[in-house]
Amino acid sequence: MLTQTEHARRGDVTEQMKAVAAAEDLPVETILESVARGEAVILANPRHKGLRPSGVGRGLRTKINANIGTSIDFPGLEAERAKLDLVIAAGADAVMDLSTGGDIDAIRRELIAHSPIPFGNVPVYQMGVSLQTCGQAFVEMDFSDMEQVLRRQAEDGVDFMTIHAGLTRRALDKVKASGRVTGIVSRGGSLLTAWMLRNHEENPFFTHFDRVLELAHEFDVTLSLGDALRPGSLADGTDWGQLEELMTLGELVKRCQQAGVQVMVEGPGHLPIQQVEMNIRLQKKICHGAPFYVLGPLVTDIAPGYDHITSAIGGAIAGSAGADFLCYVTPAEHLGLPDDADVREGIMAARIAAHVADIGKGRPGALDRDLAMSRARAALDWPGMERLCLDPQRFREKRAERATHGEACSMCGDLCVFRILKEFSATWGK
Amino acid sequence: MLTQTEHARRGDVTEQMKAVAAAEDLPVETILESVARGEAVILANPRHKGLRPSGVGRGLRTKINANIGTSIDFPGLEAERAKLDLVIAAGADAVMDLSTGGDIDAIRRELIAHSPIPFGNVPVYQMGVSLQTCGQAFVEMDFSDMEQVLRRQAEDGVDFMTIHAGLTRRALDKVKASGRVTGIVSRGGSLLTAWMLRNHEENPFFTHFDRVLELAHEFDVTLSLGDALRPGSLADGTDWGQLEELMTLGELVKRCQQAGVQVMVEGPGHLPIQQVEMNIRLQKKICHGAPFYVLGPLVTDIAPGYDHITSAIGGAIAGSAGADFLCYVTPAEHLGLPDDADVREGIMAARIAAHVADIGKGRPGALDRDLAMSRARAALDWPGMERLCLDPQRFREKRAERATHGEACSMCGDLCVFRILKEFSATWGK
Repeated sequence: MLTQTEHARRGDVTEQMKAVAAAEDLPVETILESVARGEAVILANPRHKGLRPSGVGRGLRTKINANIGTSIDFPGLEAERAKLDLVIAAGADAVMDLSTGGDIDAIRRELIAHSPIPFGNVPVYQMGVSLQTCGQAFVEMDFSDMEQVLRRQAEDGVDFMTIHAGLTRRALDKVKASGRVTGIVSRGGSLLTAWMLRNHEENPFFTHFDRVLELAHEFDVTLSLGDALRPGSLADGTDWGQLEELMTLGELVKRCQQAGVQVMVEGPGHLPIQQVEMNIRLQKKICHGAPFYVLGPLVTDIAPGYDHITSAIGGAIAGSAGADFLCYVTPAEHLGLPDDADVREGIMAARIAAHVADIGKGRPGALDRDLAMSRARAALDWPGMERLCLDPQRFREKRAERATHGEACSMCGDLCVFRILKEFSATWGK
Repeated sequence: MLTQTEHARRGDVTEQMKAVAAAEDLPVETILESVARGEAVILANPRHKGLRPSGVGRGLRTKINANIGTSIDFPGLEAERAKLDLVIAAGADAVMDLSTGGDIDAIRRELIAHSPIPFGNVPVYQMGVSLQTCGQAFVEMDFSDMEQVLRRQAEDGVDFMTIHAGLTRRALDKVKASGRVTGIVSRGGSLLTAWMLRNHEENPFFTHFDRVLELAHEFDVTLSLGDALRPGSLADGTDWGQLEELMTLGELVKRCQQAGVQVMVEGPGHLPIQQVEMNIRLQKKICHGAPFYVLGPLVTDIAPGYDHITSAIGGAIAGSAGADFLCYVTPAEHLGLPDDADVREGIMAARIAAHVADIGKGRPGALDRDLAMSRARAALDWPGMERLCLDPQRFREKRAERATHGEACSMCGDLCVFRILKEFSATWGK
């Protein structure tokens, strides 16, 4: 089997490329060239039945991912099944299953079977809880054990996988030397660190990266190179550990591209606002233009309960500077597992950031909907506004709560600017 | 009576300067120099009893304003009185009363009497509804009638007033010529436009600006030069009308500074993200470094129900580029009058933007709280996090909703990175 990258390099237009071209309103040749160069990926494991393939990368619409999944405290499949429907209805472009509780294989299969959008995961989570013992079982695994889990997941149809292969012992030394405030905040990264410390060996995903590549190639799983050392606080932003890992990720991107494996790279994390754009440009440069998947960045640490907002700020700036894929953050971040309302709010905030990013990138047509919305607004065309807005459900709810006696809204009433000016427009310019 | 500006120019340290210096943790000489140069203002009408004066401008903490006030649909005083308490408790630095319903004089007096934070208004709103007839009464006023309203408001202790003196007939011609999508979205601007069209005369606040200056001087009211032609849509961002008005505002700032009157300048509005920083730098340059008070900017038009987020994105970027004062926007913006929950959410979003802006500006100490918060986070010190976070109330609520069985949160449970690494830290680096 050939991957999308290999098809693109041969000049073969695939069904997946056609689907992406149609969804993006771009010529299929553009998609093919971007995939061939490694600047775009198509998330599409052929085992994922009923999938609408989606593209991520340069020139494409900025995408957003929603994380769902059980935890030890909330292990139920039904709740996650409902969350998947919610995530799709709310407009997420992709979903990641981060389950760490309950029957993880069953949950994954059920979710993939019902997900028309690309499905990702972080394989090491399942390894980490295989005995529900806080990584104890995981630290006793060897790479062959790990590979079995990876294979099972790929066979189930996972479209993209986060692999923390850039976390080397050298990078851990840098982290230790630089005295981080929040250490390692990546769950996968912390598990791998535990493994490395316990076994006195190099990161098994780094050591055996060729076997990871073989597996990814076999199922055309897109590798999402995880940033195990992403800063978990503003103080740790752009530090030695992060940069050391980034350099390794750049090398691993090259190896993916040589192997014809689709690859994207994950990024921070928490960053001061003035470091966001620089981080994106640096990552794109070091990682050979591979698509960039950001987790935030959160531009302050002090706002738990509002981290959908702090990450929308960071995401909008990051996206404008070239980030291609934004992972949503919900209002429950740093506090607990998100509930349905949190998931919905997180998706809307991420969609705003992605749309603003498309405007900032100058993507053709990005402003069309804003223009139509503003025309409806100026005409006091409330049905038009409801149709054009990001979240018609919220629009209706808020309007209904605030009854008004006229055609304007209850904020301005008779002082509505559009009303006043309509009345006086007959004499306009005289 | 001398204004703060005049005291500063003479080198007289006032009580108000001392209060601002203490609040900002800066030497009083720094405050005095900034006020003397017109780069900072102190919002403090001596008639406002019980006020804690607040400074706005270069080098000072980025401030946020919350708008409250009745509308024709919701004219009750009691609700606004409660909103004032809410606004203060939620941490707004200033409040503007935009009342257009009920007994506006009584409402203003009641609110000022209970507001320890600076109190602003838009005088023309009261003129616009003086007969509750959509501007009809207002268009029949002459400037002496208007001046009486201004004087009454200043005597009541209003600390800062939005005056749309930069809206000239020439600027209206520019707006007409450039074919705006959303025309004029400033309520004050639309009322003045109606007046100008009806009376075939220049903007009375522009024509009689010297009398405005005399009145502002008498009560040391800080003038907030309104941007009647602020863009109300991304399509109208940085257009001829906006720039024509801005040039006039720059001239008016000069006249304020010459008259020893404190002045700040209001800005957009709706803007594409890539125009935000440029607008701030342009405005600061054209307006002689006067403090800049932004209304947003909203970086997309399509998200009614979430405009606290769209403006937090714009506000964080604007503030980082030098904007000094952020007007909050609530989730009810474009939909109706905000209720208490909207007001609180809007304030929190604006506080996030202002804090991120202080980080972006490199204000000394801006990162201290983030650092303390992150240390508490790494130590799983939940009481510490609650104490340090932006909104302890939200923090408690969200935590309480997500019961967990351990010391970590319900997101990660036993997979908590801090827990895992603590367990393995004994072997760290071996």
